[in-house]
Amino acid sequence: MFTPMRESIIGKTIERGIVDFNVIDFRDYTENKHHNVDDVIYGGGQGMLLMPQPIYSAMEHVESEAGDRGHVILLDPAGRTFNQAVAEELAQEDHLTFIAGHYEGYDERIRDLVTDEISLGDYVLTGGELGAMVVIDATVRLLNDALGDQMSAVDDSFSTGLLEYPQYTRPADFEGKKVPDVLLSGHHANIAKWRKKEALRRTYLRRPDLLENYAFTPEERRLLAELKTEEGK
Amino acid sequence: MFTPMRESIIGKTIERGIVDFNVIDFRDYTENKHHNVDDVIYGGGQGMLLMPQPIYSAMEHVESEAGDRGHVILLDPAGRTFNQAVAEELAQEDHLTFIAGHYEGYDERIRDLVTDEISLGDYVLTGGELGAMVVIDATVRLLNDALGDQMSAVDDSFSTGLLEYPQYTRPADFEGKKVPDVLLSGHHANIAKWRKKEALRRTYLRRPDLLENYAFTPEERRLLAELKTEEGK
Repeated sequence: MFTPMRESIIGKTIERGIVDFNVIDFRDYTENKHHNVDDVIYGGGQGMLLMPQPIYSAMEHVESEAGDRGHVILLDPAGRTFNQAVAEELAQEDHLTFIAGHYEGYDERIRDLVTDEISLGDYVLTGGELGAMVVIDATVRLLNDALGDQMSAVDDSFSTGLLEYPQYTRPADFEGKKVPDVLLSGHHANIAKWRKKEALRRTYLRRPDLLENYAFTPEERRLLAELKTEEGK
Repeated sequence: MFTPMRESIIGKTIERGIVDFNVIDFRDYTENKHHNVDDVIYGGGQGMLLMPQPIYSAMEHVESEAGDRGHVILLDPAGRTFNQAVAEELAQEDHLTFIAGHYEGYDERIRDLVTDEISLGDYVLTGGELGAMVVIDATVRLLNDALGDQMSAVDDSFSTGLLEYPQYTRPADFEGKKVPDVLLSGHHANIAKWRKKEALRRTYLRRPDLLENYAFTPEERRLLAELKTEEGK
């Protein structure tokens, strides 16, 4: 399940020693004869639940290997909703430990091990692994040097408080679809203004909620008024 | 990157013929000498952008192989926010096509190929692959027979409009942490009532926003009033 963590820039941060990444299978920590990690649900219900013991024991193993349990995250729909601010907060931590169930629910007592419950969003997945990878990806890319020289996280959507402006690369004319003239003009001030306005426009049209707490500069206020007129709103 | 799709219940739905899953590398569709898929950004900026041509050509390939392009989804922070209702909507589609960039941004003209832009949440990832897998996972598990007999999607968080109630499995006493007596009582009506109340409590304490549009039964209203008193709120 975790092979994507060996790919992409996350894999590169591991290769370059910026982060260390380990997967522990709590199945190796069962203390019952049949190596079961799950059992039926008290009070009835379809499916099985992960038992506390293997996960408690695996956590003790983490602690003895790493010196501490780290910031222990449970991926769960009942957790706080993940967003860029949470990623920035997690990027400050030295050691993150994710508890990721596969397919099944957790015994409630597993939550006692946890320092942070996170939900990717208001949807349900078959397991916690994809969620853990999403949180790791969003967090690790914020570390210094993780993105290298090629790209910067500073202009990202959400980091600026706005959605990203439209971007174009070659060719200038692709099957009749043309790059806006201003981007070909070489006029830096006009380009910056166009980008700011289009970032505002996209945010205004698609995610007006993001503008509610946005700290507008006077120029941004003017650009917003302009584009509202253009949009006939 | 996509090996997780061969694991877990998503892998099983593929094995069982419920869904078919293909990965197409748009690098195979470049028409330039050096097989580049990206180029510098018009108007300046760090990094590179995916060029339109390889993705347009890959999409033509999808159309010629599959008979149609399907419901074409771009994973992008500017898209509509993914949630359980969107997953249920996508589960009605016959054919989903995801455009997933890796590391880099898209040329704006690529959006013209797209019928649906989806954001996993208000955070930025290094690529679209994890996002595509999350959307696939949340969607495929809703298909008939995908979860098999072992589990049902009906009681999920968000499907009921509430977060899930706490669940417990053996042992009844784990290191002094005990399963609530009612769940061991065998009294089905009391168990159902306890579960409803605890689902309401968890939702009330953690995600009161979900209750704003919730269609309460009279009994649920009563339980909510009760637990509010218990919580001292």
